[in-house]
Amino acid sequence: MPGYFITFEGGEGVGKTTQLKLVAEELRKKGYDVVATREPGGTILGEKVRDILLKGSVDKMEPMTEALLFTAIRVNHVSSVIKPALEAGKIVLCDRYADTTNAYQGFAHGLGIDNMIKLYKFAIGDFEPNLTIIFDIEADKSHGILTEINRFESMGNDWLSKGVQGFREVAKLFPERCVLMNSVGTVPTITNRIMNILNEKLGI
Amino acid sequence: MPGYFITFEGGEGVGKTTQLKLVAEELRKKGYDVVATREPGGTILGEKVRDILLKGSVDKMEPMTEALLFTAIRVNHVSSVIKPALEAGKIVLCDRYADTTNAYQGFAHGLGIDNMIKLYKFAIGDFEPNLTIIFDIEADKSHGILTEINRFESMGNDWLSKGVQGFREVAKLFPERCVLMNSVGTVPTITNRIMNILNEKLGI
Repeated sequence: MPGYFITFEGGEGVGKTTQLKLVAEELRKKGYDVVATREPGGTILGEKVRDILLKGSVDKMEPMTEALLFTAIRVNHVSSVIKPALEAGKIVLCDRYADTTNAYQGFAHGLGIDNMIKLYKFAIGDFEPNLTIIFDIEADKSHGILTEINRFESMGNDWLSKGVQGFREVAKLFPERCVLMNSVGTVPTITNRIMNILNEKLGI
Repeated sequence: MPGYFITFEGGEGVGKTTQLKLVAEELRKKGYDVVATREPGGTILGEKVRDILLKGSVDKMEPMTEALLFTAIRVNHVSSVIKPALEAGKIVLCDRYADTTNAYQGFAHGLGIDNMIKLYKFAIGDFEPNLTIIFDIEADKSHGILTEINRFESMGNDWLSKGVQGFREVAKLFPERCVLMNSVGTVPTITNRIMNILNEKLGI
């Protein structure tokens, strides 16, 4: 595929969403055609299921139900948004993707990262991001850019810390495509850091 | 588990829903504690996802997305409704369950019944119905008890016929728990037929 599929991953409130918008702007200034999308969400179906996943009480569903819902809408997102954009030569920036399922349902909820990878391969196959930037920061030092407290953020500090640890495990498992990025710094510093990683890893 | 988990399966408009209500009444008259439930649905979460699955255009999602959504809410249904009822010694009658995924997504949509069984085992494990009654009838001769035409019913006669065939394949794959029941006959005849099967197979 001619385009690039780049995912932004990491814990809650680490600045992914803010940075994704800024990086999209920077890349557009450089002349690239950029699609900015997110998970859960990214399609009409995905946004409906996002509401189900993020709203309501913590115990309203099992970790396995979460993993399957995330994967269900991921299949739809890949086939109707991500792959068509890549085939048209665009750069797709995605705010959270499969590594969120690996870190949260696999590691923090204890279903096993290996099982989440199995589920991904079963549903989606060999398709993978070209580059994954993991925003690394201690859970108690996160920037706190939370627009609203969702179901996952209500799971408590212990769970959020496990998530941060989960992303570090993911970075070890997929060293070719993952960059564990220190995300402490001012907003422009981080944008700059990301642009340097894109240049170094993908030449863009 | 002391209770019995009995599923009603089969094509569209074959009378499953009507019969489930009547059979539940008959069993209650005999003194059994009966939980009548359905899929997709059966829980608050399940009913929300039911709406997403059954409403809207045929092509709004991929067969794999359907399979994962069905399985996601099945996990929730089993753990919050079906297993607790069985543990309390109740009889659970369920209008559609995993064989609908086997027949429709696995066989009719072509994902493979073997793959759907794999997904079931991954998400739910070894838990299975004690008895599955498959309402067998040619798709073009179904009773047509359709309260509203849903997304699956809009997929056309060819697809519905493949579904009927899919259920026959399922019956062959799971001969211990499945009874392929001729469902041509008056409503009381069929109720009687089901009560005889329950008596013969489970002694109830």
